[in-house]
Amino acid sequence: MAEKEVRVAVVGGSGYAGGEILRLLLPHPEVRITQVTSESNRGKYVHQIHPNLRGQTGLRFCSAEDLRECDVLFSALPHGTFAERVADFSSMSTHLIDLSSDFRLKRDDLMQKFYNRSVRTAWAEHFTYGVSELYRTDIRNTRHIAGAGCLATASILGLYPLARAGYLSNTPIVIEAKVGSSAAGASPNLSTHHPERSGAMRSFQPTGHRHTAEIAEHLSAVSPHDICTTDIHFSATAVERIRGILITAHCFTENCPEKQDLWKMYRQTYAGEPFVRIVKERTGIYRYPDPKLLDGTNFCEVGFELDAETGRVVVMSALDNLVKGAAGGAVQAMNVLLDYEETTGLEFAGLHP
Amino acid sequence: MAEKEVRVAVVGGSGYAGGEILRLLLPHPEVRITQVTSESNRGKYVHQIHPNLRGQTGLRFCSAEDLRECDVLFSALPHGTFAERVADFSSMSTHLIDLSSDFRLKRDDLMQKFYNRSVRTAWAEHFTYGVSELYRTDIRNTRHIAGAGCLATASILGLYPLARAGYLSNTPIVIEAKVGSSAAGASPNLSTHHPERSGAMRSFQPTGHRHTAEIAEHLSAVSPHDICTTDIHFSATAVERIRGILITAHCFTENCPEKQDLWKMYRQTYAGEPFVRIVKERTGIYRYPDPKLLDGTNFCEVGFELDAETGRVVVMSALDNLVKGAAGGAVQAMNVLLDYEETTGLEFAGLHP
Amino acid sequence: MAEKEVRVAVVGGSGYAGGEILRLLLPHPEVRITQVTSESNRGKYVHQIHPNLRGQTGLRFCSAEDLRECDVLFSALPHGTFAERVADFSSMSTHLIDLSSDFRLKRDDLMQKFYNRSVRTAWAEHFTYGVSELYRTDIRNTRHIAGAGCLATASILGLYPLARAGYLSNTPIVIEAKVGSSAAGASPNLSTHHPERSGAMRSFQPTGHRHTAEIAEHLSAVSPHDICTTDIHFSATAVERIRGILITAHCFTENCPEKQDLWKMYRQTYAGEPFVRIVKERTGIYRYPDPKLLDGTNFCEVGFELDAETGRVVVMSALDNLVKGAAGGAVQAMNVLLDYEETTGLEFAGLHP
Amino acid sequence: MAEKEVRVAVVGGSGYAGGEILRLLLPHPEVRITQVTSESNRGKYVHQIHPNLRGQTGLRFCSAEDLRECDVLFSALPHGTFAERVADFSSMSTHLIDLSSDFRLKRDDLMQKFYNRSVRTAWAEHFTYGVSELYRTDIRNTRHIAGAGCLATASILGLYPLARAGYLSNTPIVIEAKVGSSAAGASPNLSTHHPERSGAMRSFQPTGHRHTAEIAEHLSAVSPHDICTTDIHFSATAVERIRGILITAHCFTENCPEKQDLWKMYRQTYAGEPFVRIVKERTGIYRYPDPKLLDGTNFCEVGFELDAETGRVVVMSALDNLVKGAAGGAVQAMNVLLDYEETTGLEFAGLHP
Repeated sequence: MAEKEVRVAVVGGSGYAGGEILRLLLPHPEVRITQVTSESNRGKYVHQIHPNLRGQTGLRFCSAEDLRECDVLFSALPHGTFAERVADFSSMSTHLIDLSSDFRLKRDDLMQKFYNRSVRTAWAEHFTYGVSELYRTDIRNTRHIAGAGCLATASILGLYPLARAGYLSNTPIVIEAKVGSSAAGASPNLSTHHPERSGAMRSFQPTGHRHTAEIAEHLSAVSPHDICTTDIHFSATAVERIRGILITAHCFTENCPEKQDLWKMYRQTYAGEPFVRIVKERTGIYRYPDPKLLDGTNFCEVGFELDAETGRVVVMSALDNLVKGAAGGAVQAMNVLLDYEETTGLEFAGLHP
Repeated sequence: MAEKEVRVAVVGGSGYAGGEILRLLLPHPEVRITQVTSESNRGKYVHQIHPNLRGQTGLRFCSAEDLRECDVLFSALPHGTFAERVADFSSMSTHLIDLSSDFRLKRDDLMQKFYNRSVRTAWAEHFTYGVSELYRTDIRNTRHIAGAGCLATASILGLYPLARAGYLSNTPIVIEAKVGSSAAGASPNLSTHHPERSGAMRSFQPTGHRHTAEIAEHLSAVSPHDICTTDIHFSATAVERIRGILITAHCFTENCPEKQDLWKMYRQTYAGEPFVRIVKERTGIYRYPDPKLLDGTNFCEVGFELDAETGRVVVMSALDNLVKGAAGGAVQAMNVLLDYEETTGLEFAGLHP
Repeated sequence: MAEKEVRVAVVGGSGYAGGEILRLLLPHPEVRITQVTSESNRGKYVHQIHPNLRGQTGLRFCSAEDLRECDVLFSALPHGTFAERVADFSSMSTHLIDLSSDFRLKRDDLMQKFYNRSVRTAWAEHFTYGVSELYRTDIRNTRHIAGAGCLATASILGLYPLARAGYLSNTPIVIEAKVGSSAAGASPNLSTHHPERSGAMRSFQPTGHRHTAEIAEHLSAVSPHDICTTDIHFSATAVERIRGILITAHCFTENCPEKQDLWKMYRQTYAGEPFVRIVKERTGIYRYPDPKLLDGTNFCEVGFELDAETGRVVVMSALDNLVKGAAGGAVQAMNVLLDYEETTGLEFAGLHP
Repeated sequence: MAEKEVRVAVVGGSGYAGGEILRLLLPHPEVRITQVTSESNRGKYVHQIHPNLRGQTGLRFCSAEDLRECDVLFSALPHGTFAERVADFSSMSTHLIDLSSDFRLKRDDLMQKFYNRSVRTAWAEHFTYGVSELYRTDIRNTRHIAGAGCLATASILGLYPLARAGYLSNTPIVIEAKVGSSAAGASPNLSTHHPERSGAMRSFQPTGHRHTAEIAEHLSAVSPHDICTTDIHFSATAVERIRGILITAHCFTENCPEKQDLWKMYRQTYAGEPFVRIVKERTGIYRYPDPKLLDGTNFCEVGFELDAETGRVVVMSALDNLVKGAAGGAVQAMNVLLDYEETTGLEFAGLHP
């Protein structure tokens, strides 16, 4: 305990994102996981639910009722549940890092439109949106963190350089997301039954996706002009993979940048970022981002192509929805918040092939 | 109705085998599907559950309580349920074709050992085991058919030539089965949840598999000597595929045949069989049986290799568990029973790639 | 020979589309395959290359030099090669059905822009674009057929109702295509090497895709106003599947139709079409088109969703690239041309799961 | 350079095993990669071939002709090539760690039988077989290491406890191996072309597999009695996965141990082993070893089941063929040889799901 002074509790630790928080933090040299909760698995060893952690930990799941004081509390509870219990959690832990959508939005109009409820303003102001690339300074000084949505993270990191440079205002942005099966969570149902899901190319949300709100709010925050949800045309398709998201975003810019300006924008925006890789090769099969290379890693790969004739910029952005799009992004934010080396615990380079 | 005089009812038609019976029989020129039952989907259109049948039929599921008289009743009810209701079904339909394990065995010792219950002798004698390649003459003269298990069908067709020639008595036979996910049925659970099942290589029954009993009983029936269940060492492994079974059987023959004798045995046994293909090529990537080529077809591919030094014959046998291993084998048996062309409705050649 | 009077030759029969032409035509009751060519496989049995045809044919590949007179010549030669030899082929066969891109375009400006060559006008006028749903009457009276591109077929059938009703003029259309591996053909290379290709989500043509030209020319042909290639923003992504295409098209209509008008348009356009299925369910996992259900079939499934707030119509369209997108669409066109029942040889309903 | 004093060269670094050596050693705190060779990729950046290493290294491939002195030379050259150049390499590097089969066997009879050539005795005596669990003491004192075959490693680690206790002499052992596609290497060919390989269940070596020799020689070394190659009945089947091996071994023991004795044997043998996990659960979906959990890790999972009636012990053993079965096992041996913490660089826990 001497060596790992910072005590971390993981609430809702039996799902896939919870499992990834554990995988990333168990070997983290600065923190110590003290408790993991799961009501339905109370008493079971953590490795019975997350078999990749066999031999990595002797922890057992406990009930949230048994939570003790800690320094950082990660929550992977379902949307809505975290917000209901935020006061309790806050009394137990200095810092809260929530992976649900409960505190991702600060704009009440968007919350009303996409979630049909109000922003809980009193609490919301203590939460900073957990995309470190956009909010690093804020995160350093925040109390709590609202982990970003996986599709939102991919979209935001793909479009951030264009937004920042003012290219995304008043112009339609079509975002097509391709998503693996783990994004639907750890509970089996007919749509994730292997004979039904395997080999699918299945549109599941062609219109009205909630992550539209996050994308609009947080890209607006870094853009000289507001970016409206009605300009973001988002659709999502389930494809064959367990992990991974690929965003293809078509941006119709008014004053289309030159290719070399695009390069410059992307390079400058992400210079020094440890987890964003610009991928744009002339040749080879991995010329553009591909989540296939990113399983288990905290990287977001970003690439682009320009259709000069029409002024369309096609941005591609790939990540592992459970890592950079959930647990990893949250751990990265924790590292920033607690002033650790930002990459601590997130060093896995990924596999090929 | 004039043209399709034979009325067929499908009981338990919402599962995967039930869906395949429908797919195969809807265009069958000699029969007409009059009713399909599913208690949980009562009132729904068949194509809502089996979306590949969109536009192929306007049938709706009804309850088994609403069953009317018919000529052939296919049952895809769970094991045990069919036997409980066989008297009822028999009063309604001239012929019963059951896909469960309820009447596959006639030997009480095997039923006791593997199913922990007795053979229902009075009914069992009216059922013929539905592997047409072994029991064609019996099927022509039977009243009812007990559809064979999918792994048993593959094993039996692979080993039949050796058994018939007397090579399989008093000698260990190790059968390793590789199985796709549809063999576990249409109900979702954690083991078939896509993120868990996708990419698995997972032993699920290394010992004590029930199909051992079928294999022993029906190979014994065609062998000069009895083949004991204790000589059949069966294990099953789930691998990534939706459909398909590959059996690899290692037979340790006392008086090992020469390679050309093996050829002769296999060729003679299966000469004229419309649905057994001997696959044994010198070159190419499809040198041995591969279920990849057999999705949707009624073929069983059989191949073999001889390890002359040790007298081991390795037999490989592949089929689609839902077709030749279930619905297709049953339709084939129906064709034999009703004296139709044996291949009617089963003409699909399969896809490559 | 009496019963199958129409003689068909298949040139370039060793690729995947060639194999599918054979699979579809071997059991076709009206035609007889007399020759199949492949220079590199000359002398080999057809089933050595297309192992699903084992037992279906005793044909061997011959050289194109050995071609004899026939009634219909299908060509699955590479783009460019067919055009070079069209005069020869035409002297040998009454009808030519070409699967390459050589005669898909009649507009020289598009051919110049996307293929950097001229339309061969003298020959082009004898070719009709092989999408029967658009050009059925023309096909009945044509001499030759230019089979449509797979991505173009999916896009055109998805958008045809909107185009016909005039909704697609002067408005951006973003088409995101998800594509299986067989679209890249039968020749191995690093990008199709299984360890590299399996599980990929890989953008391979974010801008400048050649099928844009086909889509523009043939949708313009059925639209009250011209549809420009600069309004069609096409991108293609390789995902994990062998067969199958899913198009997601985002159309920004000026005078957005109501949802029920969309329904009416789609229903009326495709009423009576044997191979287009409108798929748009309120519930269930197959609410929208999914190529998973279409392997081996000639169906194109079309669905849509309306984002009323922004006037965006999202059209989804799915098919098997080797069947409806190549060989099946060509056989369908042949059936129309030769006045056979349009569905002959194309009855396979597809598999679930 | 001060901190990483040990200089490592990787010869043949463009293949999959070579890539994994680089992935594991780049962050290894005790060594420094000084050179990586690939004749065909000379001059290219390492990350162009191994895109997961983007940002991890600025190394470029050089020619083997440019090799300089180093402390450890890893070779991932093809079988045969390493042996031809061992003298050269030995003059350049204190230690050689070879991943080919060239020095895995010491017994000339086995080398003659399975490889049709002689053991190069003068060199062979300086090589120790690189399975640390069997030869840890020898490896500490060896000069060079012969990395074990992937299928051999899985088989040997699965059977070691039984062999050591004398249960495997004079008794047939049937080993069925299921293998992912990366085992066939990085060069594309028709059998690994995605449309052909995807979804395959394909026997590729039902008899005569060369790894039989390694298994026999090295299990004999730890067994009280010799284990003959004629008692090891090995067959291998390609299934759908990129990485991963699952061995199912059926052992027919004369004096069958009790289940609890099996437990004891396995527990005692592997007590304290950092990379062998005994997996045998009563419930759950990961009751037995599954390579799905092991991608990228150096673990070998071993489980077993007893068929008490017949005395058959079914042993299951799973690993990642590129890590524990190649690069990882070699790095582990290097750690032992150089007296580092054995797990250094091999800490990745693996992913779920």
